[in-house]
Amino acid sequence: SRSINLAVVPGDGIGREVVAQGLKVLSAVLPGDVKLRTEEYDLGAKRWHATGETLPDAELERLRTHDAILLGAVGDPSVPSGVLERGLLLKLRFAFDHYVNLRPSKLFPNTATPLAGRPEIDFVVVREGTEGPYTGNGGSLRTGTPAEVATEVSVNTAYGVERVVRDAYERAKARPRKKLTLVHKNNVLVYAGHLWKNIFDRIGQEYPEVTTDYLHVDAATIFLVTRPERFDVIVTDNLFGDIITDLAAAVTGGIGLAASGNINPTGAFPSMFEPVHGSAPDIAGTGKADPTAAVLSVALMLRHLGLDTEAARIEEAVSADLAERSDPRTTDEIGDALAVRVTG
Amino acid sequence: SRSINLAVVPGDGIGREVVAQGLKVLSAVLPGDVKLRTEEYDLGAKRWHATGETLPDAELERLRTHDAILLGAVGDPSVPSGVLERGLLLKLRFAFDHYVNLRPSKLFPNTATPLAGRPEIDFVVVREGTEGPYTGNGGSLRTGTPAEVATEVSVNTAYGVERVVRDAYERAKARPRKKLTLVHKNNVLVYAGHLWKNIFDRIGQEYPEVTTDYLHVDAATIFLVTRPERFDVIVTDNLFGDIITDLAAAVTGGIGLAASGNINPTGAFPSMFEPVHGSAPDIAGTGKADPTAAVLSVALMLRHLGLDTEAARIEEAVSADLAERSDPRTTDEIGDALAVRVTG
Ligand SMILES: CC(C)[C@H](C(=O)O)[C@@H](O)C(=O)O
Ligand SMILES: CC(C)[C@H](C(=O)O)[C@@H](O)C(=O)O
Repeated sequence: SRSINLAVVPGDGIGREVVAQGLKVLSAVLPGDVKLRTEEYDLGAKRWHATGETLPDAELERLRTHDAILLGAVGDPSVPSGVLERGLLLKLRFAFDHYVNLRPSKLFPNTATPLAGRPEIDFVVVREGTEGPYTGNGGSLRTGTPAEVATEVSVNTAYGVERVVRDAYERAKARPRKKLTLVHKNNVLVYAGHLWKNIFDRIGQEYPEVTTDYLHVDAATIFLVTRPERFDVIVTDNLFGDIITDLAAAVTGGIGLAASGNINPTGAFPSMFEPVHGSAPDIAGTGKADPTAAVLSVALMLRHLGLDTEAARIEEAVSADLAERSDPRTTDEIGDALAVRVTG
Repeated sequence: SRSINLAVVPGDGIGREVVAQGLKVLSAVLPGDVKLRTEEYDLGAKRWHATGETLPDAELERLRTHDAILLGAVGDPSVPSGVLERGLLLKLRFAFDHYVNLRPSKLFPNTATPLAGRPEIDFVVVREGTEGPYTGNGGSLRTGTPAEVATEVSVNTAYGVERVVRDAYERAKARPRKKLTLVHKNNVLVYAGHLWKNIFDRIGQEYPEVTTDYLHVDAATIFLVTRPERFDVIVTDNLFGDIITDLAAAVTGGIGLAASGNINPTGAFPSMFEPVHGSAPDIAGTGKADPTAAVLSVALMLRHLGLDTEAARIEEAVSADLAERSDPRTTDEIGDALAVRVTG
């Protein structure tokens, strides 16, 4: 009999609230022969305030023993910007070599989009997760003086780019439209840009069935609002991926619906699944948080773990639920409704 | 009697076509006592193919003697990506210390926006123009091998950040809403981000009448499509500014209307005015290019040169022209219509 040994990191703000619904739906959807074991990790703002710790090594080692990690959201205004992001969230992504940051964008029926004309939107962004300007390379000199110099170094390797580009081609190949767009800024960031473009073109020769194109990131933001239907799979670097996936979430009904997976496709480390949204301290405790993104992140997790049928059941439940949504419901009510649907 | 000694760099593709209309409207709007002298510079793809030159030093020295530069667009698919951008366009911005890259965004009446509900949009982005990831710092090692490492270094100085932030506060102070938003990513790019945020906060104390807030760049893209009316003045770094101004152009009727100024506020060097759009080789020669962005760039130039009345006349002409637009017109016809309006 199968089993899932899941680490749960509720985190801060609405993180705990939405993760609870994710777990509720997960329990409901799992077949009887799959044993679910969850272990909760107390990480985030409260822990940092109490102990000064963001992610102790021992905890990282324990996390490593799980099959997957479900994370809510991390961050609080009471913690200096960057402390939890770098010390916890990005530390996990880097330590567990989550080089595929997978972010699907789909405009479900009946969901609000700011775009006129409701274009068809159904694409997935494969965001590199372990390189680029996110490596923490850089520093500052004469800090706080009028002579300060601060640098940020984007680090890109053939090793890192090739593996994520290959993953993106595989995903494009498996989709009906079989189209892959590279997003970068190779007319300005020429060193990193040429590395990306050369590898993108070279690996493309192994995938003759996949149509490819290239867009500068600035132009990509234009198309995301004027012709989002043109996108199928996008592969891009860590920072550009961060930016365009928030925009993609905005045009597909908002950050309350955007799921993500931080994936190590080799299986050497546990992959981590989290909603794209933040901890939203302004609405924490009000029951206003939409748990759909967390629930969809659970679906991504199940697909990663090979439970495709259950993943699809969750996605269909979300789609049906959204199609019938009208009155505002609480976080808990939405979770309940989805849990009922996946068993129905 | 006054005079304007203008350098004109038509550049590539539709650059020449739209610049011609810009000059047409400029001639029409100038009062009789302002003498206009223009000198054209042959720079861009053709020159590079013929001579291998992008911007020879002697030409840069000559350009420096002008009061301002009007540029069309630079770039062509036949030239490797980055050659003209770095060797010509960015070289000009850096050599002439264009640290204020000014990009207004306004949704004119009767223009198409991809946003449902046609929100009120009227903000201006002050994009830093001489630092950040645009400095060309970085490099690649073991280029073209499986062991390649490519870096891009974002360089940020207190000197560079302070002067552009101060400029943005001045602009915010002069506007009715008096609101300034800093856009960065200081939860990840902590060195550069903290430099920006600290200077932003410190200088803000000198502008108690200006309301301020801070947004991560990813969140900013969301608001640009869901609540663009929340923005008044935005100050941001070179790369984030590049990205969000294309998005801003998209939501305010497209890149055909977006003007920009590359400004050296000290007057030590000539400032340069250009449409945000590129050379669009696919429509070059068809008469389909909209010269409005180039014409609005001329208005920004006139304001920079102290000809406020004439700048306003152009902006009103554009607004009136857009309000009455229906049938498609050629580049030339739009230029003619605007030239008539500014004299009328
Ligand atoms: C919180 C932050 C560090 C994170 C990122 O920049 O990756 C978030 O914006 C995201 O997209 O997951
Ligand atoms: C052409 C390119 C170098 C330029 C930039 O990145 O600044 C353009 O996109 C712009 O916004 O003016």
